[in-house]
Amino acid sequence: MGKEKVQRVRPQLLKGFRDYSPSEQIAREAMLGKVRSAVELMGFLPLQTASLEFAETLLGPHYSSDSLAELFGFTGPDDINMALRYEFTVSLARYVASQPDLALPFRRYQYGNVWRVDKPGPGRFREFMQFDIDIVGTQNLLADAEIIAAMVTIFEHLGVRRFAVRYSSRKLLNGVVEWAGIAPERGPEVMRVIDKLEKQGKDAVLLELGPGREDKSGDKIPGLNLGRTEIAKLEEFLTLAGTQDSDPLAHAQALVGKVEAARVGIEELREIERHLRGMSIEPSEARIDLTIVRGLGYYTGAVFETTLLDLPEFGSVFSGGRYDNLVERFINKPCPGVGSSIGIDRLLAALIELKAVELTTSTSQVIVTTMDRERIGDYLNILHELRQVGIRAEIYSGDTRNLTKQIKYADKVGIPFAVIAGSDEFEAGRVTVKNLVAGRVKGSETADRETWLAAEGIQETIPRSQLIQYLRSRLG
Amino acid sequence: MGKEKVQRVRPQLLKGFRDYSPSEQIAREAMLGKVRSAVELMGFLPLQTASLEFAETLLGPHYSSDSLAELFGFTGPDDINMALRYEFTVSLARYVASQPDLALPFRRYQYGNVWRVDKPGPGRFREFMQFDIDIVGTQNLLADAEIIAAMVTIFEHLGVRRFAVRYSSRKLLNGVVEWAGIAPERGPEVMRVIDKLEKQGKDAVLLELGPGREDKSGDKIPGLNLGRTEIAKLEEFLTLAGTQDSDPLAHAQALVGKVEAARVGIEELREIERHLRGMSIEPSEARIDLTIVRGLGYYTGAVFETTLLDLPEFGSVFSGGRYDNLVERFINKPCPGVGSSIGIDRLLAALIELKAVELTTSTSQVIVTTMDRERIGDYLNILHELRQVGIRAEIYSGDTRNLTKQIKYADKVGIPFAVIAGSDEFEAGRVTVKNLVAGRVKGSETADRETWLAAEGIQETIPRSQLIQYLRSRLG
Repeated sequence: MGKEKVQRVRPQLLKGFRDYSPSEQIAREAMLGKVRSAVELMGFLPLQTASLEFAETLLGPHYSSDSLAELFGFTGPDDINMALRYEFTVSLARYVASQPDLALPFRRYQYGNVWRVDKPGPGRFREFMQFDIDIVGTQNLLADAEIIAAMVTIFEHLGVRRFAVRYSSRKLLNGVVEWAGIAPERGPEVMRVIDKLEKQGKDAVLLELGPGREDKSGDKIPGLNLGRTEIAKLEEFLTLAGTQDSDPLAHAQALVGKVEAARVGIEELREIERHLRGMSIEPSEARIDLTIVRGLGYYTGAVFETTLLDLPEFGSVFSGGRYDNLVERFINKPCPGVGSSIGIDRLLAALIELKAVELTTSTSQVIVTTMDRERIGDYLNILHELRQVGIRAEIYSGDTRNLTKQIKYADKVGIPFAVIAGSDEFEAGRVTVKNLVAGRVKGSETADRETWLAAEGIQETIPRSQLIQYLRSRLG
Repeated sequence: MGKEKVQRVRPQLLKGFRDYSPSEQIAREAMLGKVRSAVELMGFLPLQTASLEFAETLLGPHYSSDSLAELFGFTGPDDINMALRYEFTVSLARYVASQPDLALPFRRYQYGNVWRVDKPGPGRFREFMQFDIDIVGTQNLLADAEIIAAMVTIFEHLGVRRFAVRYSSRKLLNGVVEWAGIAPERGPEVMRVIDKLEKQGKDAVLLELGPGREDKSGDKIPGLNLGRTEIAKLEEFLTLAGTQDSDPLAHAQALVGKVEAARVGIEELREIERHLRGMSIEPSEARIDLTIVRGLGYYTGAVFETTLLDLPEFGSVFSGGRYDNLVERFINKPCPGVGSSIGIDRLLAALIELKAVELTTSTSQVIVTTMDRERIGDYLNILHELRQVGIRAEIYSGDTRNLTKQIKYADKVGIPFAVIAGSDEFEAGRVTVKNLVAGRVKGSETADRETWLAAEGIQETIPRSQLIQYLRSRLG
């Protein structure tokens, strides 16, 4: 065995994948902790399902190999086709279908990574974290109200005040489609077009309902080729829906209330609204907005979206709706439900933008420096004492005794305080505490360095016995 | 489009995969929270790396398709060979290699799922959660002591007292191999055999060092065919190592101290021991045990294992060691480090066995029942009030008005208290609180049901205004 030249591997990530550095991960965990405590306050139960599933669980019995490839799907052990989950709903359905004794309604939350072979781009990843809440096994509109309330509560826990949850009803929208004289099976296409209202504007939507249009790059977007009267009626509804009004339902009632589906939708929205008022949720937090549609085909009742008023460009950070039969793919038994989903990474990016999260790079609040190897025992005593009272602390454990380099390390990590002591200090029963944050902010120094440092609170030598008290008062 | 018979999918999990039900997930999150706060108290920084990696990142440049298949590996988008991570160390190395500005030593922790195509069995899964701590970029033995201290601190935070961290040194063991007259390149095989000491006993180990042996099922386990003198020397060391003694290093010094590697190993162990004493960690918590080897080839310094004294059959729940060059696969630059790894799911199983975790099935502490549809507003007021003061609460949001069924739901979920009220109560300004836990434990009832229920604290009707106070005092 001669010595061979080692062949190296490039330290790179797959396209669309990322690492979370400590500072990102600290912020993410803090945010996640608040979201979790908000939904647990409301009695949601954590569920964690497997990351890999049978291909037919995720895609149904008749999937194509193309659709499998969109999911990080592959043929795994025992020649079984499997794929990484791309969302949680199917796994929830599988879980519910396999637990005949589960108490219903099942109020569950799940968070974790999901994987999709989307085209990666800025802010678009192939692995990202999602957080879902659902209440399954009930038609009671209290559940719809609870899901909306959960979205409000989460924002409250996150300290975000300027947001708006807006909701409407697919039943009302189906009624509008009927009222416009459009065949019910065309409903989903119509919804998908109307869903573009906020992003593309009314003119674009009307063109797509009719002959189609060209997008900015000149590409042709095909239209639904609806008739003139049909489009006129939809336009009438959209005009009404877009009007800022304290009671949009009264207008909707006047316009389409004679259609049974619309009437039921309007009644349900009134009930959800009453429930929200009962929970002291104001229209400024959650209000009916009849322009809300949600593009996906499977919603059958309430639909909702949530926008950050100061970051409308982020779109809906939290959205969902009511669906009819969760477990249909697995068992022949009705199981209606309602749920909502947050893109955790997008929400985090938004909170960082809003400065609603504190960005820290360090978990340690204090570093105990170790310039004198003979005094390691004393340094370790200090370390132990700090940790015993709950002060997050580390001892410098790198390979240099050079104090300047040790401080440079602490500074780079972002540790706010350094404890410094040599034999002289220990013998005099004293230690020096350096405030690295203050030292970083205030650059200039006067002639009498020591006095200036102490006066500015940057560096002080104090009795060893007062160390804990001194740090505690400064760490708050 | 005629109506077709829906073809169902069996709601099943892939072999070796599992879901975590709410009660399991509540316990797991609680445990994880304690482990995380323990390591953050020690200044470890969270890192989260991608779940999927290039195949050559995980396996090196010359991997075989067989080794890829052992990792849930596959050819993904853009015809790239990729795999789910099977541990965190390689990803840590990739991260460190790609961050030339990273502050070293880097004290990082990472937890999350890892995937391995092992043969599934009881307690053995193909997806499981691991928790790693490492300090990389340093040769300072303070780092080794910190990793051992982290293991002790984690158990303290988990409320587990009866554990033993035991550690030894690969340098000392290499010295023993040299002293026994065995060629150094045979060291790793020798370590792998000696590692079986605790599980298989000394006789089995001696046979495997020599001609080999038969295992219980009669299968032949090949031996290393070492010479008689070599084996005799190893036996002499193992006898010494197995002796319960307050200072095993003194005996080791006498036996093999003249071999340079052994001498250095002994000195390093003494230094680590001194550091631990400096942190007030007692030998009852972490002690030198020269029988500890760790089977893996890549350790080069300290090695450690952790056993639960009341559950020795669980084996080591937390183990690791020092390694020489983490980033070797990626860049030509030395980066030594030391780390340790916990199998979170195995540890959780152990804690459940030890009754060191509380098993709850519910996040809600209170359910507000809804027997009177006219009073939904009043029920929601109560719900809101409970949540405002931080009492975890839900409103019954299923499809029945039947109170007995609502209570049955609450009982099944495990919610301890139910608030019950109808119009009569509301008009009298009163509500009823039912203690479902007490009601479950105490089965019998006397003739005067009301009095008995109140006396036993199972059901009481109280003024509505005292509800929060009443529940708070009972929820503790």
